[in-house]
Amino acid sequence: MSWTVYLSGEIHTDWREQIIAGAAKLQLPITFTSAVTDHDSSDAAGDHLGETPSNFWRDHQSAKVNAIRIKNLIEQADIAVIRFGDKYKQWNAAFDAGYCAALGTPYITLHSEDIIHPLKEVNAAAQAWAQTPEQVVEILRYTTSAE
Amino acid sequence: MSWTVYLSGEIHTDWREQIIAGAAKLQLPITFTSAVTDHDSSDAAGDHLGETPSNFWRDHQSAKVNAIRIKNLIEQADIAVIRFGDKYKQWNAAFDAGYCAALGTPYITLHSEDIIHPLKEVNAAAQAWAQTPEQVVEILRYTTSAE
Amino acid sequence: MSWTVYLSGEIHTDWREQIIAGAAKLQLPITFTSAVTDHDSSDAAGDHLGETPSNFWRDHQSAKVNAIRIKNLIEQADIAVIRFGDKYKQWNAAFDAGYCAALGTPYITLHSEDIIHPLKEVNAAAQAWAQTPEQVVEILRYTTSAE
Amino acid sequence: MSWTVYLSGEIHTDWREQIIAGAAKLQLPITFTSAVTDHDSSDAAGDHLGETPSNFWRDHQSAKVNAIRIKNLIEQADIAVIRFGDKYKQWNAAFDAGYCAALGTPYITLHSEDIIHPLKEVNAAAQAWAQTPEQVVEILRYTTSAE
Amino acid sequence: MSWTVYLSGEIHTDWREQIIAGAAKLQLPITFTSAVTDHDSSDAAGDHLGETPSNFWRDHQSAKVNAIRIKNLIEQADIAVIRFGDKYKQWNAAFDAGYCAALGTPYITLHSEDIIHPLKEVNAAAQAWAQTPEQVVEILRYTTSAE
Amino acid sequence: MSWTVYLSGEIHTDWREQIIAGAAKLQLPITFTSAVTDHDSSDAAGDHLGETPSNFWRDHQSAKVNAIRIKNLIEQADIAVIRFGDKYKQWNAAFDAGYCAALGTPYITLHSEDIIHPLKEVNAAAQAWAQTPEQVVEILRYTTSAE
Amino acid sequence: MSWTVYLSGEIHTDWREQIIAGAAKLQLPITFTSAVTDHDSSDAAGDHLGETPSNFWRDHQSAKVNAIRIKNLIEQADIAVIRFGDKYKQWNAAFDAGYCAALGTPYITLHSEDIIHPLKEVNAAAQAWAQTPEQVVEILRYTTSAE
Amino acid sequence: MSWTVYLSGEIHTDWREQIIAGAAKLQLPITFTSAVTDHDSSDAAGDHLGETPSNFWRDHQSAKVNAIRIKNLIEQADIAVIRFGDKYKQWNAAFDAGYCAALGTPYITLHSEDIIHPLKEVNAAAQAWAQTPEQVVEILRYTTSAE
Repeated sequence: MSWTVYLSGEIHTDWREQIIAGAAKLQLPITFTSAVTDHDSSDAAGDHLGETPSNFWRDHQSAKVNAIRIKNLIEQADIAVIRFGDKYKQWNAAFDAGYCAALGTPYITLHSEDIIHPLKEVNAAAQAWAQTPEQVVEILRYTTSAE
Repeated sequence: MSWTVYLSGEIHTDWREQIIAGAAKLQLPITFTSAVTDHDSSDAAGDHLGETPSNFWRDHQSAKVNAIRIKNLIEQADIAVIRFGDKYKQWNAAFDAGYCAALGTPYITLHSEDIIHPLKEVNAAAQAWAQTPEQVVEILRYTTSAE
Repeated sequence: MSWTVYLSGEIHTDWREQIIAGAAKLQLPITFTSAVTDHDSSDAAGDHLGETPSNFWRDHQSAKVNAIRIKNLIEQADIAVIRFGDKYKQWNAAFDAGYCAALGTPYITLHSEDIIHPLKEVNAAAQAWAQTPEQVVEILRYTTSAE
Repeated sequence: MSWTVYLSGEIHTDWREQIIAGAAKLQLPITFTSAVTDHDSSDAAGDHLGETPSNFWRDHQSAKVNAIRIKNLIEQADIAVIRFGDKYKQWNAAFDAGYCAALGTPYITLHSEDIIHPLKEVNAAAQAWAQTPEQVVEILRYTTSAE
Repeated sequence: MSWTVYLSGEIHTDWREQIIAGAAKLQLPITFTSAVTDHDSSDAAGDHLGETPSNFWRDHQSAKVNAIRIKNLIEQADIAVIRFGDKYKQWNAAFDAGYCAALGTPYITLHSEDIIHPLKEVNAAAQAWAQTPEQVVEILRYTTSAE
Repeated sequence: MSWTVYLSGEIHTDWREQIIAGAAKLQLPITFTSAVTDHDSSDAAGDHLGETPSNFWRDHQSAKVNAIRIKNLIEQADIAVIRFGDKYKQWNAAFDAGYCAALGTPYITLHSEDIIHPLKEVNAAAQAWAQTPEQVVEILRYTTSAE
Repeated sequence: MSWTVYLSGEIHTDWREQIIAGAAKLQLPITFTSAVTDHDSSDAAGDHLGETPSNFWRDHQSAKVNAIRIKNLIEQADIAVIRFGDKYKQWNAAFDAGYCAALGTPYITLHSEDIIHPLKEVNAAAQAWAQTPEQVVEILRYTTSAE
Repeated sequence: MSWTVYLSGEIHTDWREQIIAGAAKLQLPITFTSAVTDHDSSDAAGDHLGETPSNFWRDHQSAKVNAIRIKNLIEQADIAVIRFGDKYKQWNAAFDAGYCAALGTPYITLHSEDIIHPLKEVNAAAQAWAQTPEQVVEILRYTTSAE
């Protein structure tokens, strides 16, 4: 049996790569998916469609194009990992968590101890809180491959 | 016909009161619902259950108690208003927006212009972006009472 | 038992009024709902939100505001009547029919004989095709009140 | 990961072929599906079943046979492209859009600028509006293959 | 709390009246619903719409009009009673049972012992098999009113 | 793309074989599924479990074992064919049709002209009525393989 | 707004009465529902239907009659309380918890500390664990009536 | 066609191995899945995440990690087998049965005759009750491979 894991959130550190490498090393039967994580590409995703007369509508147009991918990948995921870093608003990560919660898709949060309190609602619907990518990999190993 | 509108997000300004008063003045057929908005009560919602040996688990226990109410009210809402203020992480508001999006419940965001960019994914799934409570009231009037 | 009937489509003739009057005369236990049918109000539904720098985005903003009402009313309807007149594109009426079909909400089409062919897909998923408001009223009487 | 894209609407120009060729050139991992686009075959789809005593019932019988395919393909699609040309009623395209909207399947509209206004409700629930097949291909490339 | 019970099937004996009278005598908090049970009215339900050029299409048109009522009432029912008499095909009753089974709506069958075998699939998904209206009333009393 | 077609109903003639052979000849991309059609095996499906103290419970036990297969196969089917022969009650076929209707799975009925009237409700929710296996094969060819 | 709370599990102590009385004292807007809690009535719920030739089938028949009520009440509940006492298997309580979990209905467990370990899977999907009826009442007060 | 069968419950006897071996001998097209059945591993599934300051929260953390796997596997299963042994509470097995019942996933119980009565609600929603692994294998053979 193979599993699909969606990686949502922070794009400024290499947590995705660490999880993917950790899973590869253990040969876990997992396909990882993600939104487009190149910041500039993502912001410009709808620019080729024309019609971006203000900041709001430019963002709107691009975000709706991005959502085609994100919505499909989240709905196909067996598990999501939702990462919150130290900076930025990262409301899209919390949005993805809420989306998973409503779908009943199990998700794992990945964040440091100092943001426990503002993430309490997000964690209340999570299956696990991890502080390191290694912990996430261990959960994925256990879930997909333990006997 | 009567409508139910869930008010989610910021608890530090009186935007809820403004919307409720505006709707009352127009005699709109709306019942407003909300999470418990008293900050201390909310943080302590699970304390009477005992067993809070760390910050994480105290928050977890309380947030899960709060979720009984929030989940029910969001699932019963016809419309949600999701408010983001100038401060704080407010990840619970973005979480509620994602939850609404997955359910297909139409929601309106309420926030100032300077946070358009970090909210682009949240707005991409919203039906409207308002900058003032008056604008929200006008949408509610139009939706529930225009001919 | 009371029923809710959503009236979708053409806004240039008085078919809504005829159906409502016909049902009232028979005292049928029906609440009728509808989108806002004032053309100018509908086109301007989002104008108070600002940010309408082009025809496309002005229409988009207003149509999304209108959708808050339409989506809720269609999802609450027991039956829909979808009216196609002689003129205009009326794609919103066909859109509503498709929405009803996917939800499994029974709908009745109301249109003249000369547009049978272009409406064949819409009629394929309908429960009945009526040519006059009187026929619609008779279906509603039978459905809600026959013994 | 492979994707399925349903192509709905106009059958008089070669927009389908352009999109399919564009995706093939980029080797996008996409399977394209469509209703039967041969006009005469489609109109005659139910004729072999007998019983077509009037225009209405002939169309009805054929359209219900066509719906077996359409319904299955739309429900299996990850994305739909809904094309409106310059002529004809094309109510089936708007019907498909409404069906997708109710299912939560993301769709892209493809039409020229002069029909923005009558398509505003259809666009309100779309993820993107494209004016050329090339723009659609670019969205599909970005969605299925960008990093 | 009040309950809705849909009564499906045979229209040639007074089993509906017996159940309704039995429930009334016990003042059970139940609203009973049913398809139109007047045979001629039911067969003619669509005749006023014109277009009935063959037996098949006349039946089709009427049955689709009847389905507006039946589908709504079954989907709103908390419980269904499915009655099979000694004569006739009664495929509509078995159809309703299958519909209930797929929805997860609990249903009770009401039939005599000599048709146990052909009804085994229908009974396999039923919550109870009753042989008399009195037994049905007793189940309804227990379900809605026992402490 | 491959399709799954569930064949439900009569087990006394070779209509299943005719459809399967017709599809094979045309190399249609279809997997056919079916309940166990050996009458004695089906009736005895639960006998090895013991506990069959009466006709009713023997039938009940076997029918529930059969339902494990039937329920899975119907829920996985893209299309169902529901066959009614000249004899027997065949309530299970009508039950399967109702189940498909509630799921939204398109189905084709296959029966002769003399039972149009008692099957009117079953046909009202069907996509097509065929009188011969050849007609069914033609619908399947058109649906799965026409361009 | 009014709430419905389903009380599941142990029938040998007065925990139901304590919760109902506690809620009444606080005038909480709650309707409490429950399976039939009279042990003998529950075991005999199907006896009047005849056909109980063995312990297994007698239990089966009665349990299926009871399920008509239980299934409806759980599906209508906003919240469930699942009580495990010191004795007996109480598999029905755990079954109800699993049913709630799959539906997404929030539930509270009520049990003493010495059975934490065997209930860990049931608690993992619960919103709260209470040890006394007073704690449950406090959660209900907070959920339904706090500002 | 291949099938997925989830094996839930007791971990102290070799019933899983017997069913898997029996199915292998018959070359049934079945993939078997299961929770992690190593008791110590299961209890410690969340320990690497830190934060286990009490028995309750240690169990909670591990059980939520286990639920990632269990929830996914049950939701992907075509059939479940729910095993109750002679000892222990086994509330998780009953919980899984309730979860399957709400999803509509057919399940088979496997238990000895002396616990019929406390399992009556669990059996009321089951498709079959087996007393030996051989009986389960026979049901699986019949379901997946009989003609």
